[in-house]
Amino acid sequence: MSNTTAKRSRRRRARTLAEKRGLPPGTPVYTGDVEGVPVHVQVIDYAPDRLDELEVDDAQRLSSYRDEASVTWINLDGIHQADQVQAIARIFDLHPLWMEDILNPQGRPKAEVLDDKVLVVARMVHRVEGVVNTEQVALVLGPGWVLTFQEQAGDVWESLRSRIRQGKGRIRKMKADYLMHALLDDIVDAYFVALEEVESRVDGLEAAALDPSTRIDNAAIFALKQELADFRRAVWPMRESVSALLKADGGPISAAVVPYLRDVYDHVVQVMDILESSRERVVGVYELHLSVTSHRLNDIMKVLTLVSTIFIPGTFVAGVYGMNFKHMPELEWEYGYPFAWAVMLGLGALGGIWAWRRRWL
Amino acid sequence: MSNTTAKRSRRRRARTLAEKRGLPPGTPVYTGDVEGVPVHVQVIDYAPDRLDELEVDDAQRLSSYRDEASVTWINLDGIHQADQVQAIARIFDLHPLWMEDILNPQGRPKAEVLDDKVLVVARMVHRVEGVVNTEQVALVLGPGWVLTFQEQAGDVWESLRSRIRQGKGRIRKMKADYLMHALLDDIVDAYFVALEEVESRVDGLEAAALDPSTRIDNAAIFALKQELADFRRAVWPMRESVSALLKADGGPISAAVVPYLRDVYDHVVQVMDILESSRERVVGVYELHLSVTSHRLNDIMKVLTLVSTIFIPGTFVAGVYGMNFKHMPELEWEYGYPFAWAVMLGLGALGGIWAWRRRWL
Amino acid sequence: MSNTTAKRSRRRRARTLAEKRGLPPGTPVYTGDVEGVPVHVQVIDYAPDRLDELEVDDAQRLSSYRDEASVTWINLDGIHQADQVQAIARIFDLHPLWMEDILNPQGRPKAEVLDDKVLVVARMVHRVEGVVNTEQVALVLGPGWVLTFQEQAGDVWESLRSRIRQGKGRIRKMKADYLMHALLDDIVDAYFVALEEVESRVDGLEAAALDPSTRIDNAAIFALKQELADFRRAVWPMRESVSALLKADGGPISAAVVPYLRDVYDHVVQVMDILESSRERVVGVYELHLSVTSHRLNDIMKVLTLVSTIFIPGTFVAGVYGMNFKHMPELEWEYGYPFAWAVMLGLGALGGIWAWRRRWL
Amino acid sequence: MSNTTAKRSRRRRARTLAEKRGLPPGTPVYTGDVEGVPVHVQVIDYAPDRLDELEVDDAQRLSSYRDEASVTWINLDGIHQADQVQAIARIFDLHPLWMEDILNPQGRPKAEVLDDKVLVVARMVHRVEGVVNTEQVALVLGPGWVLTFQEQAGDVWESLRSRIRQGKGRIRKMKADYLMHALLDDIVDAYFVALEEVESRVDGLEAAALDPSTRIDNAAIFALKQELADFRRAVWPMRESVSALLKADGGPISAAVVPYLRDVYDHVVQVMDILESSRERVVGVYELHLSVTSHRLNDIMKVLTLVSTIFIPGTFVAGVYGMNFKHMPELEWEYGYPFAWAVMLGLGALGGIWAWRRRWL
Amino acid sequence: MSNTTAKRSRRRRARTLAEKRGLPPGTPVYTGDVEGVPVHVQVIDYAPDRLDELEVDDAQRLSSYRDEASVTWINLDGIHQADQVQAIARIFDLHPLWMEDILNPQGRPKAEVLDDKVLVVARMVHRVEGVVNTEQVALVLGPGWVLTFQEQAGDVWESLRSRIRQGKGRIRKMKADYLMHALLDDIVDAYFVALEEVESRVDGLEAAALDPSTRIDNAAIFALKQELADFRRAVWPMRESVSALLKADGGPISAAVVPYLRDVYDHVVQVMDILESSRERVVGVYELHLSVTSHRLNDIMKVLTLVSTIFIPGTFVAGVYGMNFKHMPELEWEYGYPFAWAVMLGLGALGGIWAWRRRWL
Repeated sequence: MSNTTAKRSRRRRARTLAEKRGLPPGTPVYTGDVEGVPVHVQVIDYAPDRLDELEVDDAQRLSSYRDEASVTWINLDGIHQADQVQAIARIFDLHPLWMEDILNPQGRPKAEVLDDKVLVVARMVHRVEGVVNTEQVALVLGPGWVLTFQEQAGDVWESLRSRIRQGKGRIRKMKADYLMHALLDDIVDAYFVALEEVESRVDGLEAAALDPSTRIDNAAIFALKQELADFRRAVWPMRESVSALLKADGGPISAAVVPYLRDVYDHVVQVMDILESSRERVVGVYELHLSVTSHRLNDIMKVLTLVSTIFIPGTFVAGVYGMNFKHMPELEWEYGYPFAWAVMLGLGALGGIWAWRRRWL
Repeated sequence: MSNTTAKRSRRRRARTLAEKRGLPPGTPVYTGDVEGVPVHVQVIDYAPDRLDELEVDDAQRLSSYRDEASVTWINLDGIHQADQVQAIARIFDLHPLWMEDILNPQGRPKAEVLDDKVLVVARMVHRVEGVVNTEQVALVLGPGWVLTFQEQAGDVWESLRSRIRQGKGRIRKMKADYLMHALLDDIVDAYFVALEEVESRVDGLEAAALDPSTRIDNAAIFALKQELADFRRAVWPMRESVSALLKADGGPISAAVVPYLRDVYDHVVQVMDILESSRERVVGVYELHLSVTSHRLNDIMKVLTLVSTIFIPGTFVAGVYGMNFKHMPELEWEYGYPFAWAVMLGLGALGGIWAWRRRWL
Repeated sequence: MSNTTAKRSRRRRARTLAEKRGLPPGTPVYTGDVEGVPVHVQVIDYAPDRLDELEVDDAQRLSSYRDEASVTWINLDGIHQADQVQAIARIFDLHPLWMEDILNPQGRPKAEVLDDKVLVVARMVHRVEGVVNTEQVALVLGPGWVLTFQEQAGDVWESLRSRIRQGKGRIRKMKADYLMHALLDDIVDAYFVALEEVESRVDGLEAAALDPSTRIDNAAIFALKQELADFRRAVWPMRESVSALLKADGGPISAAVVPYLRDVYDHVVQVMDILESSRERVVGVYELHLSVTSHRLNDIMKVLTLVSTIFIPGTFVAGVYGMNFKHMPELEWEYGYPFAWAVMLGLGALGGIWAWRRRWL
Repeated sequence: MSNTTAKRSRRRRARTLAEKRGLPPGTPVYTGDVEGVPVHVQVIDYAPDRLDELEVDDAQRLSSYRDEASVTWINLDGIHQADQVQAIARIFDLHPLWMEDILNPQGRPKAEVLDDKVLVVARMVHRVEGVVNTEQVALVLGPGWVLTFQEQAGDVWESLRSRIRQGKGRIRKMKADYLMHALLDDIVDAYFVALEEVESRVDGLEAAALDPSTRIDNAAIFALKQELADFRRAVWPMRESVSALLKADGGPISAAVVPYLRDVYDHVVQVMDILESSRERVVGVYELHLSVTSHRLNDIMKVLTLVSTIFIPGTFVAGVYGMNFKHMPELEWEYGYPFAWAVMLGLGALGGIWAWRRRWL
Repeated sequence: MSNTTAKRSRRRRARTLAEKRGLPPGTPVYTGDVEGVPVHVQVIDYAPDRLDELEVDDAQRLSSYRDEASVTWINLDGIHQADQVQAIARIFDLHPLWMEDILNPQGRPKAEVLDDKVLVVARMVHRVEGVVNTEQVALVLGPGWVLTFQEQAGDVWESLRSRIRQGKGRIRKMKADYLMHALLDDIVDAYFVALEEVESRVDGLEAAALDPSTRIDNAAIFALKQELADFRRAVWPMRESVSALLKADGGPISAAVVPYLRDVYDHVVQVMDILESSRERVVGVYELHLSVTSHRLNDIMKVLTLVSTIFIPGTFVAGVYGMNFKHMPELEWEYGYPFAWAVMLGLGALGGIWAWRRRWL
């Protein structure tokens, strides 16, 4: 989750909701700003003993997958084509307000259970060609199917797809609710990648703060704090979401999947723990930094004061005997010059001794 | 919500309540300070198949709309004419204490359910001729009707009115509780306009804080913090209000409207989220600013110390050989002048080297 | 609530409780420090159609008012005469521990329900001859009567008394629980007077903090913070008290009075809201103030550094050519003097340019 | 609660628990560090009409007091003789884990109800020969008896003992649960003595912070904060303890004693209130102090800058005309000297005017 | 828990979870980084009247201990050999997700109850050859057996083992749930050792902060804060874990063991208390330190300003009379030199008096 993305996202969030003002609730309008990418609908339909995988151009053809006999995962990349999304929503009978949540890429992560269906809105963090990217994803679980709606192509589910294709693990033997869990699990696991990157930057800041010769970049601390806050805002509601799903057992979530969801819950809590720990460390770095800054100021001022205390009185004395008065008896005195040196050195030594007693040297 | 408005509102709130002291509770006295604007009562009465819209001068004529057959929305602009408000209240049988809440434009946003009626007090943010304005609005839902009481003309419901007139969306087919939801939804949506303006100011402050050549305006940070606090105080009770309405289902709120209200609830939470994020960013800007300020102080002092360390010892030496003692052997010495330069340059170089080793250069 | 009063109150609170150590709980001992003022017992006994008002010297004569037929309000000014209080307590059968609460003027505001009686301890804020004064007041509601115990004469209930006398509003038609509500309502309304005064001081501080030419008085911020904290400590338990009364409906509080008490509750919450807002503004002023202080330090140091950077090198050069060495070729040189000026001006200009590039000028 | 005691207590707490590692739970080992003082067991056995008071050397002789007919209070000073404590524990059938709590003088205050017995561990603050002392005390309430275990002789219960002896108040007429309440009441009342001392120190700090001529002692603020934190840690669990006792009514605590315990509860809450208020005041003093410190720095720097701005340019000019160049036309000029003075005074005046316009003078 | 360990642990935690991405949940993969150490399985099987103790190479041979007749404690050192762990898991029928928790040495401490089994994951702090070491340990309680899985050899249970061998205390007479409690008790007791070391470092910092001649090490405060935060993060979930076990009574935990577990719970709360107290003290040290630093700056600046105020005006005067103007009447004046001294001393005295009046001297 790069800083620029987060800032853009924040600004967009406020703007798009402002723009939608006046439309009746539930109006299917796309409120993101991705455009022109062709919509891409992928269907994976499987049972323990068979697997169908196909690409669909027209959402209308999906109605045959509404049955419960097999598990169907329908993934749509590109929610900017609201009509396709609406066609799917009509086939699978989604509530109009869910439509709005699916089409708004700036919504707050959340989970809602309605009759036998579950909607989860989450933020997905993944690498597209080496760049960490964050996008919103909406997942709908129904009897025998899971729908996933993404803003763009590219996601964190490639390994899940190959597990389904190869029939590895439990996935092919379980129902749609297990698929839902697997999708969420992969989203949460992907947070750890982003965390790792954040942690290494916190480590760098910490090392810099402890090295007296380095100058810490204020902007870096600031940016990191903002990112951690944004990250937390993405993960925090996730905990509530999974918790809501756990409470929905007996309904759309079967008892067999509950332990797996609890595992996802544990991972979300762990992400929050690491985030909280990072945040505390950044605050620690900030305080350390403030403290080091004022120590340095003290050191600088000690030097200035020391130099001034030693040399300014001497300069005064020298100035005195540099005066051009006609009648200055000391000037005529044979030992005047050594006497002046004695006074000057004495005053300087007083300053030095005084500084030494205050442990400045 | 401009700063001046908020401050005026705060001061007024304390004053008006202080002024009402000693009156028995429920006394219908207007406690705001808008005066002289003519009261304006607008009635919109609709059913799926028909629509009546009229302006009423005398509140007494509204009694025919008390029935449940059609949905009636009665909007009053100008609560300063307490007698008109009271006439309406009598016709629709409102509790005397609700009267007090309706007439006090400085009340705390809240919701109350009493038998088959619901009172919601909220703060409405809207643009009147380009200026963001905030006023209090009271909404009362009863069986078959909704009353709205505003301080002034001008509100956020124009698009709702045209939707009712044109019969677009669900609105004409639904009951009064859906109308109540639509009114609240538009109030909450209007918060996003104000948020957008606040966000752009936070962005500006952030950019200024990160640019070392800009000097941040302390007063701007301060004002923004106050505004965010005021905004939060307006939105926070709104969440409780909508939550209270959600708990009133089965009573005045029908089950069909609950999902729509939950949607409003989500939007309120989102506003609070953005507000909280803005607040954190302003705190971040403040800390960054403090940190930058002390860095600059360090830099300034380094320069002063450096200049002093290099030149003050030299000035002392120059002063010494500027003395007018008769017996100063160095003055007679042939290489005295180069020797003095050597000493002066040496002392200056010592200062420079010392600074360089402390990485000041 | 003046600062001195609050401090005295705090100290007294700890001391008196320390002094009572070793006495058995419930011992009727007055623990305040008001003395010598004559006790004053006022009785107002009313029904919808009649009103008796009298002054009583001897508490023993009050036993006839214990009945439920009419509403009796007995007000005692001067709890330092513990025997009078105890006589009343015996007649109306109050719990011994309530005696202790009534006689201790430093107690914590609270409410207790016991069988058919309710005790409320609150802090009353009122003006006695122009000075804001705060004193503790204990209210006891029983079947058909309300007892109020004050430390001193003078209270916030004069307008209530005239309403009772003139039979205005609901008061004469309602029971003792409504009287209880009216007493509490007037206490809470009086907080707004004190709030108004506090708000105007916060406004003054804010204006001073934003005006760069004013020097903020640290002690004023400090005193205001203490007062707000003391105020909050007085109001906070009031919320719990009213909330406890609300839960006592069905018992001593009838259902008809509940909406009125809820109104009082709303006012208490509003007082807390304004207090919280004031507190945040004072914190804001403090931070603004700190920030302005360090800005000023930076400005001061810039000036010092600028002056030093421009003149100290020049002074050094002038010192060099003020030396009295015999062999100083520059002194003999024809253009020596202009050359020295060139060097001095050049060094000064370097300092100036450097400062200009750092945007100090 | 002196600072040294608290620090010793903290360190001891960690150490003794570390030392007990490896022993099975419930092993009766004394973990304090008081040694050699002879154990002292005092028995007070009373009924409304009679009183026995005796000292017992051997705990074995206490078994006759296990009956419920009279109220027996057995007080043991000196828990370091674990065998005596264990003998009592066996007679009155205490749980082995309670033994551990009684013998560990560094435990956390708490209350536990088991069948018909109640254990309360609390911290007792009292004066032994003028010095405030804090020690742990364990109280066990059973049917007809109360056991109290102290570390040392000397406690806060002398006045209670004389009330029992003289039969004053309710105490002789009530059961053992009332005795338990009376013991707790005296412990809580003794906190107010310590509070009074703390409050007067906070008052002193406040006065010092507001007097500009005083220099605040950082260490005093620091020590006071630590003491308040330690005090709070002692009182905080006390609230839970009394609350737990209140919930045990119907069991070991009879309904008649509940109002008295609620009174103790109120006092504990009041202690916490005063502590919290003191803590806030100390934080206020700290902030005031920081603010005053930076104000003083600004004042110091203003003086330095003013002196430098006025005299350094003049010194430079004087230096210029002190140079010994052969060709310096100004030196020959008749009005050279007044001209130099004019330049020097002009530069100094510029500095003065500039400072005056910035309101430094 | 040394700082380096904690940092390594933090980094590893994020990394390993990131690496596991894409594997199906419940896959038994070791995610730690200890390698090559031979796995070591120790079995202690006991009843009140007998004890078997043996080492097992192959986990397959453990199936005979699944019965409930005797209590069996199976301890495995070295979870990096996932196949051994999985063999045990299969024999004792552990849930696949528990496998994952056992094999992941960076998990969050937690407790889970499933049917008749309990999993507790905790962090164990112990000394291996004098170095404080922290490792994760997983405990599984089933009917008649307890499994413990450690990363490395060496633990805090040696004294427990000898108590079992020697039949001391209750341990041999109780069931497996008591063994579980004893294991947890020893883990919690070991925290006190680490706490003691932390406390002594806090004491050292406090002493250093109060001694004006010492310079506090910023990095030490910083490191201590981080360690306390890490420690707290290890202990905090422990409280929830023991609390979860307490709620599982009636199931795998018998009522007889509940008081012992409550004792463990009390100890965990006490550890948290001490940690919290340490954290507050470190914050106090930090604030004291900041305050001392700014006091020192003030002192330094006072000296500089004093020296400058006394000598700079004098130097200016000396400079004036060092000028070489032809016409300088004072130079010819007989008392010029004493007059100059008078002026210089006067200016210096003015500075001194001014400083004395500001109480700088």
